[in-house]
Amino acid sequence: MLRKINLTEKFSLINETWSPKIAGQVNDCHVKLAKIKGEFVWHSHESQDEMFLVVSGEMELQTRDRSLILTSGEFVIVPKGVEHRPVALEETCIMLFEPLETVNTGDVEDSHTQKDLEWI
Amino acid sequence: MLRKINLTEKFSLINETWSPKIAGQVNDCHVKLAKIKGEFVWHSHESQDEMFLVVSGEMELQTRDRSLILTSGEFVIVPKGVEHRPVALEETCIMLFEPLETVNTGDVEDSHTQKDLEWI
Repeated sequence: MLRKINLTEKFSLINETWSPKIAGQVNDCHVKLAKIKGEFVWHSHESQDEMFLVVSGEMELQTRDRSLILTSGEFVIVPKGVEHRPVALEETCIMLFEPLETVNTGDVEDSHTQKDLEWI
Repeated sequence: MLRKINLTEKFSLINETWSPKIAGQVNDCHVKLAKIKGEFVWHSHESQDEMFLVVSGEMELQTRDRSLILTSGEFVIVPKGVEHRPVALEETCIMLFEPLETVNTGDVEDSHTQKDLEWI
């Protein structure tokens, strides 16, 4: 029941970008791992905050009025309702922390939308 | 409102061991940062899972029937109700993820118990 998750090992199993996998559950939140590259779709989550921790690479977290550059060992929490878009120029590994019901594209449904995520 | 947290920077501000600080809130969970060294007290959290991510150093997570060694970039989720004890031979930096109401020593009250944690 108690399992150790090695982030480097898990990321090596992920081949696609923008396809988050579930690496753990803490109460009613999922820990997700994703590789990202390029621009994601603008979206917001009506009632869920979302945490992005950069494990390797560099991510730009854009909101409509500002932008933050995050590198390895940095995180940001996007409050519920705030429209945002992650962008990565190079392949970047991120850990996400968000409620079980969070869908990656929030209020938007497009080609990036992923439901019923796999565990890794 | 949107702030970037750099883990190295935040850990450099922590001088005591076993004194977790709050670095963020994601919905009803806190992201906490702590430096640990030595043996903590055996305890459990009746209704809260707890996530430990090692950022630097090495932590042994003991339960009554097994033990896991975690180094940088590794995490474990201790399910609610499981008695556990973190141990670190050298000073180790960890990130914790747990519900707002979680107290570090769970069902035990001793000299390690910390309530009303500071934000960092």
